[in-house]
Amino acid sequence: MSWARGRTASGTIVTGVIEAEALHPRAALGADEAAGAPVALADLTLLAPVVPGKFIGLWNNYKAAAKKGGQAHPTHPLWFLKACTSLAGPGDAVVIPESAGRVIFEGELGIVIGRPCKDATEAEAEAAILGYTCVNDITSLDVLSADSSFAQWTRAKSFDGFGVVGPVIATDLDWRSLVIKVLVDGRERQSYEASDMILTPPQIVRLLSQDMTLNPGDVIACGTSLGARPVKAGQVVEVVIDGIGAVGVTMVGPTGAT
Amino acid sequence: MSWARGRTASGTIVTGVIEAEALHPRAALGADEAAGAPVALADLTLLAPVVPGKFIGLWNNYKAAAKKGGQAHPTHPLWFLKACTSLAGPGDAVVIPESAGRVIFEGELGIVIGRPCKDATEAEAEAAILGYTCVNDITSLDVLSADSSFAQWTRAKSFDGFGVVGPVIATDLDWRSLVIKVLVDGRERQSYEASDMILTPPQIVRLLSQDMTLNPGDVIACGTSLGARPVKAGQVVEVVIDGIGAVGVTMVGPTGAT
Repeated sequence: MSWARGRTASGTIVTGVIEAEALHPRAALGADEAAGAPVALADLTLLAPVVPGKFIGLWNNYKAAAKKGGQAHPTHPLWFLKACTSLAGPGDAVVIPESAGRVIFEGELGIVIGRPCKDATEAEAEAAILGYTCVNDITSLDVLSADSSFAQWTRAKSFDGFGVVGPVIATDLDWRSLVIKVLVDGRERQSYEASDMILTPPQIVRLLSQDMTLNPGDVIACGTSLGARPVKAGQVVEVVIDGIGAVGVTMVGPTGAT
Repeated sequence: MSWARGRTASGTIVTGVIEAEALHPRAALGADEAAGAPVALADLTLLAPVVPGKFIGLWNNYKAAAKKGGQAHPTHPLWFLKACTSLAGPGDAVVIPESAGRVIFEGELGIVIGRPCKDATEAEAEAAILGYTCVNDITSLDVLSADSSFAQWTRAKSFDGFGVVGPVIATDLDWRSLVIKVLVDGRERQSYEASDMILTPPQIVRLLSQDMTLNPGDVIACGTSLGARPVKAGQVVEVVIDGIGAVGVTMVGPTGAT
């Protein structure tokens, strides 16, 4: 099943489930109750499929990247928050502000939470996962390292538009089989297997639920692996995961120019 | 003028302005339109006065603390996000989880945003400030420094209840005249003047609005100064700022015991 969110020509925003080329509105994310007549996908602009209350990102969660960087495997997620105002969706233009300097894409698998979750067991954590989505965790390298006394993880990742999510939330997927790819102007620049994760999605949700309450709609980007690279104004950057789909954005300069 | 939020005995949550011992409901935070009949304060449980979309905290923003720590004065805010699920309000019990280890209070002045703000001038930034509140930016020292490769600012500050805000949002205050105090079990343990800030509230808002869009209800804790100290289960910790009021919580152990 695929959850999506779209805007009609009149500006109404609809969250629901995709069936037979239409979005079937539901009362809330993950809810079973229908909430209105289906809208043809052709009549909708797809948005990021969820507006998260928390947009969590992980660092150092792939074995290949940890090996290359000489980092030990964490036993608890090493995480930061992206500002929820960084949210972008399919087809958006993402501005690279002057102050961001050098910017990279990071293609990632995103977990979307479907039910409240605190101090969960691993089984509860797994059950709290509504589904998976594609994330581009866009990051300013210059901001991240601008101050030697304070690593600016959140600021580097929170510029408006730097949190690309979509196109849908796919349920009933086996995350172990997924491959995360990034295409820049159609050319493959990143490709790695989700099965190379250090902490698995159920482990991540279980451990994060020891830190704080997770709520429906919270998004957890599982970290990236090798191959994250600089992007520039004018480039189209797509994160593609078979079984979920592709979410692409166009990078634009500070004045909106490509 | 003082903005507050309260819950009636029947569970209705009301946001409005305090006048003559009553909360006068308003359509939204900062709005002029009345939205219902006044409710006597005696019939309300006061909550944190706002549910922020972003809960931002600053590090290294007081001259006295920077001097003691040997830190240079930042020219841009050094900030992190607290999870919005960390929000607590007047009278709440705040659990210190086992995994948090050593925990300190940090009494701070909080800015509450009243209107959307992006790439603001200093005058626009000042106009975007709805008012000021008291914040206790509770922090786990052990989590903050648990991993030498990754300072866990957000995790250390995001446990449920670690973001104490209240009791009201006071408008028409001159922040330069404010003194931030913390009382532990009634004894003063922290006291410093807001005028010792490195970056002032209008500068903070102007500079943060270069990083991302600020929205009504966003809370910015301006950082703490000297005197932050450990707290333990059983202690009552109050942040007091004359002109705003006092917000106190009771620290409790992992099982809810004091």
